Amino acid sequence: VSRHTRITLLTDFGTADGYVGAMKAVIASSAPDVIIDDIAHDITPGDVRAASWALGAYWSRYPAGTVHVVVVDPGVGSARRAIAARIDEQFIVAPDNGTVTFALEEARDVAIREIDNTASDICATFHGRDVFAPAAARIAAGTPFETIGPAVIDPIVITFPQPIRTDAGITGAVIHIDRFGNLITNIPPSMIEGHTTVNVNGLPIPIRRTYADATIGDPLALVGSRDRMEISVRDGNAARLLEAAVGDTVEFVAAP
Amino acid sequence: VSRHTRITLLTDFGTADGYVGAMKAVIASSAPDVIIDDIAHDITPGDVRAASWALGAYWSRYPAGTVHVVVVDPGVGSARRAIAARIDEQFIVAPDNGTVTFALEEARDVAIREIDNTASDICATFHGRDVFAPAAARIAAGTPFETIGPAVIDPIVITFPQPIRTDAGITGAVIHIDRFGNLITNIPPSMIEGHTTVNVNGLPIPIRRTYADATIGDPLALVGSRDRMEISVRDGNAARLLEAAVGDTVEFVAAP
Amino acid sequence: VSRHTRITLLTDFGTADGYVGAMKAVIASSAPDVIIDDIAHDITPGDVRAASWALGAYWSRYPAGTVHVVVVDPGVGSARRAIAARIDEQFIVAPDNGTVTFALEEARDVAIREIDNTASDICATFHGRDVFAPAAARIAAGTPFETIGPAVIDPIVITFPQPIRTDAGITGAVIHIDRFGNLITNIPPSMIEGHTTVNVNGLPIPIRRTYADATIGDPLALVGSRDRMEISVRDGNAARLLEAAVGDTVEFVAAP
Repeated sequence: VSRHTRITLLTDFGTADGYVGAMKAVIASSAPDVIIDDIAHDITPGDVRAASWALGAYWSRYPAGTVHVVVVDPGVGSARRAIAARIDEQFIVAPDNGTVTFALEEARDVAIREIDNTASDICATFHGRDVFAPAAARIAAGTPFETIGPAVIDPIVITFPQPIRTDAGITGAVIHIDRFGNLITNIPPSMIEGHTTVNVNGLPIPIRRTYADATIGDPLALVGSRDRMEISVRDGNAARLLEAAVGDTVEFVAAP
Repeated sequence: VSRHTRITLLTDFGTADGYVGAMKAVIASSAPDVIIDDIAHDITPGDVRAASWALGAYWSRYPAGTVHVVVVDPGVGSARRAIAARIDEQFIVAPDNGTVTFALEEARDVAIREIDNTASDICATFHGRDVFAPAAARIAAGTPFETIGPAVIDPIVITFPQPIRTDAGITGAVIHIDRFGNLITNIPPSMIEGHTTVNVNGLPIPIRRTYADATIGDPLALVGSRDRMEISVRDGNAARLLEAAVGDTVEFVAAP
Repeated sequence: VSRHTRITLLTDFGTADGYVGAMKAVIASSAPDVIIDDIAHDITPGDVRAASWALGAYWSRYPAGTVHVVVVDPGVGSARRAIAARIDEQFIVAPDNGTVTFALEEARDVAIREIDNTASDICATFHGRDVFAPAAARIAAGTPFETIGPAVIDPIVITFPQPIRTDAGITGAVIHIDRFGNLITNIPPSMIEGHTTVNVNGLPIPIRRTYADATIGDPLALVGSRDRMEISVRDGNAARLLEAAVGDTVEFVAAP
């Protein structure tokens, strides 16, 4: 193991129960040189969509060889598979429940293997410690990817509605809401040329370059950091102001 | 110091006030090669039981030489002792307030020393920074354990009710509730052979292997990751559904 | 880069959206040997005062060469400058919005440079990833400080009321409230010699050495870990008991 190799951890375990500590202990014991980067442990319990979205924010910017562990796993102990994906020159270790969805969108080269999780000493309620952390440590230590397990050709992916062009403009949806209450949509900036306004829950909102282009407390739409259109409120919280939720419809229109 | 040596941190300090940052700074300054693993900083303020339980989740899986710092310390600045425990080939640094309880249960070989905390430059409200972090760095740097301070033979331990066999079955208690609302009991799986049901707050709950063996929203009992019986709700929260709290009674019984 | 060099991260990004993960990825890619220390990511969104206060808790205790990244940045994308400060032998990278206030108070030797943030591939809403993380990695990698950008001689600092002596005693203010509900004032212990009591929201509170000198549930004033007077409640929460907020007045008086 190079002492540059990193394993990242994203879970819904919280930290206070020591579950993440147990995963770190397993990694430290079998791959002591690896650097462990916490990403987050406060994903809403069981929210696979949110975990997949978050993974999409960072994985591709990590260096080659990084192993990303993502455990948001309501199906733990069931027949759901455990998988390791090689994407470009990095790796993802996760339950086969859609976690890889947003990462696959960006990947050029993907191979997926099934991780065996049938050993008798694996606790049926804690694969993070007993399956995923050991698999990540093995991959970080250089285990040939092909030896992980049988090839998987049908990983589970989450399907999202795609934005569509209508007579009125572009109709899309809110696919994520972040800590600041920003509404992140499924609409890329390239689609909205010629449009000037977005309607969210009945309110028309202007498109601007950045927060400072709006008056404090006013909503605006802008290009977000994941190359999708977002709706924000300057120094405020768009989700609260607009009473918006993931799945809500947004409509970009041309000014009249 | 080997650059593999790890110091883990578990506190109730939160992170936003910079208190944990100050502890990391002290460690980085005196033992720069040590790897610092955050475990958790969101223990409920003053909840020594919760900290001790969490410590039990990870300490024994870390490699030899690891130093575990646990600071949940409502008695800071009082006459309570500061201690360093050598358990098997690892170390715990903590106030002498019961923090070590669950770790001692599992340890084969234990020695405890008192850490001097009388220096004039020690702030009476922040021994995490001024006593425990420096002591952890010294131990990680190889200071002989025997030189830490005088031997302690009577560390404070928290006493918990033990499960008991009755005519009706096994009576135990909830000793921890985790982020998912799982009720963790003090009853080992080995005690419940022949029993099929557990009664919690008047509700009979079946014993299953894993979450997927229950219908979504239904409660079940199963063997947890700490080798105790737990009560869960599939894709739900048992603590909320059963209105349960730490200390509540659980009764395993045979089916009629 | 020495493998001892550390970059610390303090933000209001939360962790669940993967924004901090993206910053870590950028650092890992360009400065793989650097150790990344999380300080906190749960600063109240936009609360620059709180971030500046937290930074003051740890920066000066880190070893020479450490780079402290602080991104609480409601003005992201506006004309506000991005700055790098060299303070003593360490560095701070932050928006020019007052973040450096408490660090400057303690610094003996300060130089500040402006970081260019006009490149076309910089997202207007995420300078943490596209400006501050890359700048921190460059500084950690040994880029000469003078080459960062033009000198800044007028960084924005937050002004706080100073404690004043009155006929009645010392009048000061609450400048921070921590996770435990402790009220941290702007009054140094050196000012209160001869005073015995502090009045907070109408309640007289005695000065003690440490928490254990008060009865459980009772308020007390004591010297805090940042060398300011604090008001606490033993095993309780002073902010709740006293219904206190940042900015509230406190008055130290001599006993009658």
